[in-house]
This record gives sequence, C-alpha cells and structure tokens, in this order.
Amino acid sequence: MKLNEILAQLGLAPVEPGDLEITGIAGLADATRSQISYACELKHGQELTKTQAPAVFLPEKLKGLVGSGTVAIVVENPELSMAEASRLFRPHFELPQAGTQKIDPTAVIFPNVALGSNVTVGKNCRIMSGAYLGDDVVIGDETVIHPNVVVYHHCRIGSRCAIHANTVIGSDGFGYAHTSSGEHVKIEQMGNVVIEDDVEIGSNTSIDRATFKSTTIRRGSKIDNLVHLSHNVEIGEHSIIAGQTGIAGSTTLGRNVVMAAQSGATGHIKIADFTTVAARGGVTKNTEPGKTYAGFPIMEHGLWLKFQAKLARLVKQKS
Amino acid sequence: MKLNEILAQLGLAPVEPGDLEITGIAGLADATRSQISYACELKHGQELTKTQAPAVFLPEKLKGLVGSGTVAIVVENPELSMAEASRLFRPHFELPQAGTQKIDPTAVIFPNVALGSNVTVGKNCRIMSGAYLGDDVVIGDETVIHPNVVVYHHCRIGSRCAIHANTVIGSDGFGYAHTSSGEHVKIEQMGNVVIEDDVEIGSNTSIDRATFKSTTIRRGSKIDNLVHLSHNVEIGEHSIIAGQTGIAGSTTLGRNVVMAAQSGATGHIKIADFTTVAARGGVTKNTEPGKTYAGFPIMEHGLWLKFQAKLARLVKQKS
Amino acid sequence: MKLNEILAQLGLAPVEPGDLEITGIAGLADATRSQISYACELKHGQELTKTQAPAVFLPEKLKGLVGSGTVAIVVENPELSMAEASRLFRPHFELPQAGTQKIDPTAVIFPNVALGSNVTVGKNCRIMSGAYLGDDVVIGDETVIHPNVVVYHHCRIGSRCAIHANTVIGSDGFGYAHTSSGEHVKIEQMGNVVIEDDVEIGSNTSIDRATFKSTTIRRGSKIDNLVHLSHNVEIGEHSIIAGQTGIAGSTTLGRNVVMAAQSGATGHIKIADFTTVAARGGVTKNTEPGKTYAGFPIMEHGLWLKFQAKLARLVKQKS
Repeated sequence: MKLNEILAQLGLAPVEPGDLEITGIAGLADATRSQISYACELKHGQELTKTQAPAVFLPEKLKGLVGSGTVAIVVENPELSMAEASRLFRPHFELPQAGTQKIDPTAVIFPNVALGSNVTVGKNCRIMSGAYLGDDVVIGDETVIHPNVVVYHHCRIGSRCAIHANTVIGSDGFGYAHTSSGEHVKIEQMGNVVIEDDVEIGSNTSIDRATFKSTTIRRGSKIDNLVHLSHNVEIGEHSIIAGQTGIAGSTTLGRNVVMAAQSGATGHIKIADFTTVAARGGVTKNTEPGKTYAGFPIMEHGLWLKFQAKLARLVKQKS
Repeated sequence: MKLNEILAQLGLAPVEPGDLEITGIAGLADATRSQISYACELKHGQELTKTQAPAVFLPEKLKGLVGSGTVAIVVENPELSMAEASRLFRPHFELPQAGTQKIDPTAVIFPNVALGSNVTVGKNCRIMSGAYLGDDVVIGDETVIHPNVVVYHHCRIGSRCAIHANTVIGSDGFGYAHTSSGEHVKIEQMGNVVIEDDVEIGSNTSIDRATFKSTTIRRGSKIDNLVHLSHNVEIGEHSIIAGQTGIAGSTTLGRNVVMAAQSGATGHIKIADFTTVAARGGVTKNTEPGKTYAGFPIMEHGLWLKFQAKLARLVKQKS
Repeated sequence: MKLNEILAQLGLAPVEPGDLEITGIAGLADATRSQISYACELKHGQELTKTQAPAVFLPEKLKGLVGSGTVAIVVENPELSMAEASRLFRPHFELPQAGTQKIDPTAVIFPNVALGSNVTVGKNCRIMSGAYLGDDVVIGDETVIHPNVVVYHHCRIGSRCAIHANTVIGSDGFGYAHTSSGEHVKIEQMGNVVIEDDVEIGSNTSIDRATFKSTTIRRGSKIDNLVHLSHNVEIGEHSIIAGQTGIAGSTTLGRNVVMAAQSGATGHIKIADFTTVAARGGVTKNTEPGKTYAGFPIMEHGLWLKFQAKLARLVKQKS
C-alpha cells in the first residue's frame, strides 16, 4: 500500500515522497524501510532520529528530530493514527489452502483438527482433536498439542513441549488507542508468540501475541492453568508460573523466576533472575536477583512476615 | 404446561384457576400473563402487587399483597419452589435442524464449525474452526468468531465484534436455591447474553447468561482474557475490563469504566460512569462518577496512596 | 518393564532381584507389588516400612527402614529419580480405536465430538459439539457435556452432572522435580479426576488429574467459571466454589464448604465442613467447622471486620 493511500484513508494530507510502498507498522527501533512507525514522547527522540522507518506519525514537538530518510507526519495523537493505520494491515482469516501443510509422517493428527495454510508439524508430535493451528504456525518435534488448544497464525512452538487443553497461544494483545470522545481504537497486534523447547503450559491459559515482535517463553519454563500472559511479555528460562497468575504487557522475567499462585505483575518492569514471588504477590517494580517477595505491593518476604505480625498485633489491640 | 401440572410436579396442592398455560418463569416486574414468578421479601411488595404473572410462589406473609389477577402459591421457600419449577422449562439440547441457518453468502464458515438451529450470521463474518453457535444465535456483520469460541443458545452478538479463542458466551449463571439439608437446586438460567456492536473480547473469558432477561455488554467495550462476568451484569459503553477481572451477578457498570487487571466487584452494585478501579481493586459498594479507586475494600486512590505510606511506616517502626 | 531396565534408563546400577515386572509408579501407601515408589523424608518411615512397592527410590538415611520385600534404591534426589522413571510410563496418545465405545442408544452425540477408545456414555446424556472424551472416560446418565469441554483419559463423571463449555477435566497436575542446575523434570501425572453425581461445573474451569490416585469432586457440589483445582484436591459434598477461585494441590474441603469469588487456598491443608471463606479470602491453614473467614491470610470474619475498621481509622489519622 502506498504511503499516501494510507494517509488518505486516515484523512491526512499527502506527503512527499508519497509513493513509498508500506507493508506494515513497527516500533521505531525495529521498523524496516517499508514499515511506518510512530513516536509520542521526547524520550523516544534518539530512536526517532535513528529509525529506518520511512515515515513516522508524531506530534509537532518531535518534528525536528527525524532523520533525513524519514518523513515526519505531524498528527495530534500519534498512537491513534498508528492504530487507524494498523487496521489497514490486519489479518483477514481466509480458509486454509489445502496441500500447503508440512506434517512429518511420524506425527499423529487426530480427527477434527484444523490446520491453517503453511502449518509445519515436526516428528512424533501429537495434535489432538479440536486443536487449531493457524496459518504459518510451526511446531517442533515430540510436542503434544492437547485437545481444543488454539495456536494463532505465525506463532512458533518448540520441541518436547506440551500445551494442555483449551489453552490459547497468540490471541491479540489488549492494546487500544483512545479518541477524545472516549472510544477505543484497536492497535492491530502484528507480532506473534514464540515458545522455546521443553516448555509445558497448563489448561485454559492465555498467552497473547506481541503488538510488534514476539511474546517469548524461553526453554524449560513451566506454566500452570488459567495464567494470563500479556503482549510482549518475556518469560526467562526454567521459570515457574503457577495457576491464575497474570503478567501485564512488556514485563520481562529472568531465568528461574518463580511466580506462585494468583500472583501478578504490572507492565513494563523487570523481574530479575531467581526471583521468587509468593502466592498473591503483586509485583509493581523491578526486583533484585535471588530475592523472595510477598504482598501487594510486594516487599521482601522477611519484611512481609514482620508486617503481618504487626498487623496481627494491631487487630488484637484495644482501641 | 398447565399451572396445576407444575404444582403437582412440585408436590404442591392444586389452585384455581389451575388450567392456565404457563410457558416459563420470570421476575415479578417482567413476567407476562403466561410466566410464573416468585417473591421472598416485603421489599418486593410493590412489584408483587403490580406483576402480570398469573401465579407467584411466596411466603405466607406476602399473601395479602397479590393483585386480583394473580394466584398466590404459599410455600416455605419461594426461591426453592421457583428453582424446582424452572427445571420443568430447562433446555434439552437437541441436534440442530439442517437448513434452518441463515448465513450471509459473504460470511466464511471454517471447517469443523457447529451451528445450531436457526443461527443467523451476517455479512463478511468469519466463524472459525471449532466454534459453536447454539440454537437461535444471531451474529451481526463483519464480526470474527475465533476458533473454539462457544456461544450458547439465544445469545446475540453485534457487528464489527471480535471474540477471541475459547471464550464462552452464555454459559449458565451460577444460581442455586438451597434445601434445608444443604443441597443446592439449580435455578435454570432463562436469559441470554447480548453483546452490542464494536465489542472485542479476549480469550478464555466467560460471560454468563442472565437468570432472566440479559447479561449486556454495551457498544465499544473491550474485555480482556480470563475475565468472569456473572449473570445479569451490565457493562456500559466504551468500558475497559482488563485480564482476570471478575464481576459478580447483577452489578452494572456505567460508560467508560476502567477495571484494571485482577480487579473485582461484588454483586448488585453500581459502578458509575468514568470510574477507574486500579489493579487488584475490589469494589464492594457503589462508586461516584469519574473517580479512581484502589484497594480491597476500595478507597479513593489518593487515600489509598496515603494508606500505603502509613503501612510502610508501620513496617519500619520498632515495636 | 523390568526393574533393571528402568534403572539402566536412569543411569543407575542394577539391583537384585532386577527382573521384577514394573507397571507404574505410586505413592508408598498405595503401591502394589508391580509399582515402584519413592521416599524423601524420615516422616515417611512408617509408610516406607509397610509399603508393598517392590522397589523404592530413597536417600541413604532411609535405607534401613525398608521392609524385607522391598529393594532400596539409594539415590541423591529420590523425587527426581521418580520423575525420571515416571517418564517411562507416560501416556502416548494414540488414535482412538473404532468400535470400542459404549454409548447408550438414548444418549445424543453431537457433530464434531471426539471419543477416545473405550469411552462409556450413559442414558440420555448430551455430548455437545467439539467435546473430547479421552480413552477410558466414563460418563453416567443424564449428564450434559457442553461444547468444547475436554475430559482427559481415565476420568469419570457421574450422573445428572453438567460441565459447561471449554472446561477441562483431567489436565496434568503441575508437578516437577528439580535438578541441581535448576531444570524442572516433569512428574508424570498417573491419577485421574472423579466427579460424583449431581455436580455442576461452569465454563473455562480447570480441574487437574491427580499425581497418583484421584482428584475428587463429591456429589452435589457446584463449581463456577474459571476455577483452578490442582492435583489431588478433594471437594466435599454440596460445596460451592465461586468464580476464579483456586485451590492448590492436595488440599481437602469438607462438606458444604463455601469458597466465595476470587478466593484461594494453599496446598496440603484441610478446610473443615461448613466453612465459609469470603470473597478474596486466602486460606493458609486448616479451618474450624462452621466458621466464616475473610482476608489474606484468613482470620475469622468478625475479627476481619474489626481489623478493617482499625485500618480505616489508621487511614484517617494525622501522622
């Protein structure tokens, strides 16, 4: 789609050069010469100056920061413009093309499985009844996809993984831009989910695809039932995420992190290697490696125990 | 079914006139001339006097309040009698009747989709593999039903909606009457779910059908993964419900309400327009418009911050 | 598989008698003469002495406690050895054998249902579209399995039950042994789930199979949406588990327990008959019969109300 066609669809004035072929949307740091991008804040200035994106939606105040290869498209709400543009590149979900799947002959595909176009399934896999593998999904070797699991298009699952029943890999991240009248405009989720080798995921868990790039579960991690992992989360190697835990967008976990049951983490933070979060713990800030935390907001576990003891005394006090 | 046949099934004495044809159960305010109803408390007196219901289960104390067109059926536990009667009108889930579906020719129905009797699907919809649309379900135009979504009978979904994988629309509300020996008798859930236009719902979310009438999601609202919306909840326009939030029965949200992740609300309350509830917030009472709340039980967000600061000092105190 | 073949696979030295035929793994108290077992702690001494298991993985310190019919296999990490051995007995998920299912002629099997080998379905059941019943599953009479429910192999569901859409019965419990380098080795989950009569389970709920023996839901219990019940949990008769509640492994609930919404319980505790836990309550210790609890960690409800009042005063204090 030509750049000026996109701008016309958004009700924006044409720019020069307007006949650049645009194939999608991406973040400033990752955009190629055919992907449009956006910038909102001054803190994005350095990325803005360096971006390969041929055109960037931005506010007036950032206009001077674009490099010579980039067209500045000044708009009031760059995120909203990006959301509107993303709609032009959304997937359309067409019927699978027969004969495009590459299924290893040792894999067993159960009855009632639905395979999208260009699906790849490795050696000795079991893809059980009712599972759906969307277009361009790749599954490694010796992996079991249990019944009614849904893997959205372009997601990748490694070898020796098990994904339990009714879990969803790659549903859209929960991302919207907002109009001045309070409506929400979907930011189409262009990324995917990448699950490395030796990962097990329980039942009824949801792992959202990334807005751009990948939501990533590194090798050896184990994830329980009814867990919610938002877009662009990264779970480090050999981490343990127990039941009903939720991790908000773009938060990263190091290796061997343990999140006990019903715990949570806010978005855009870093949970360090070997961190343990007790059941119900709510992580709202970066953690230090190897420490154990509890409570909401979290505190170190030893402190939390003292705190609980003080609260217990408070309960007993006459007053 | 004749009224006296129902009473005989419940082991109750016949009444006059007992040959009224009863087609179902409904609340006092909404019952038609062919629906039986029930009343438990004096506070229902006015509704009881005005009801169109031809017969009402009620305790002795409310007997005098029925209007002239209504037969009072005095029972010890009206809710239990209503539950027992509701069983006589429960759905039986028969195989779909071929040829009764109205699918727009521009809609794409993927392989392995199951459509009940009298299903309607609008223009350019995508009904993806493994989805189930129960009897009499209506889907508007341009809506995407992702794989393995289940929409129970009689639910309605608007236009330009997206329902992500493995989400359930219209499962039974969690409602039981209780016997004196501690057994639970199901109140058959007679209502449905109505989802208006431009609503997006994440994966593995459950939205229960109403006991009577409708659980309603108003236009433009966005609901994340693993959210639990109970029977008779109403979500106002352009509201945002983040992951793992739960709303108990009959609670209503105004427009542009934001419920952050892992928040919750108790039943039968009103969350006002433009209310924001922080992550983990637990709403136990009505809110005021435009305010931000946090904590459980909730308090205004500014107060919660001061409270957290005081608790932090308490932790540090020698004692 | 011969005992010495198992040991060879684990890189362990052969024992005498090494040609015992081993058919699986079990706990000390339940192992038969063909099941291998394991012991870690001195507290297991009595069970160790009495076990029928022909061979037991154990640490050096427990070696002297085995009975005369049992071979002591001394290892550094008995749980890890057991996990490695369990892998040799894991299920392989083969295509169902046609003609082995016993479906009562009055049961209705909807289109797109997948039935494993040796499935039994009783009178007047409804098995709705997209449901999966694994090998050797038994369903009683008059039970409704809603669309896209998954029941894993060897699980049993009673009569007059309803299991709502997309719920999973019998996914693997979340159990791993850990290597010294921080990797997690799956303990294959050898047990099943047994659901007695008159149980209703909501949508998108996960009930894990037992490590050994059974996760059990006793008759008349009602379980809501998005509930997480871990391996070896036991729910007593006529209990009520509301939405988004989670119960950790091996915890038992008595009869008529009420767990309100978003509550939780830690593992290996006993929640007594007629206990009520308020919404968001987090149970970390055994409860007393008939009492109501709230808070996290829980306290008696009356105390919790006083505690909340004190906290409210604390908020208002100048400081």
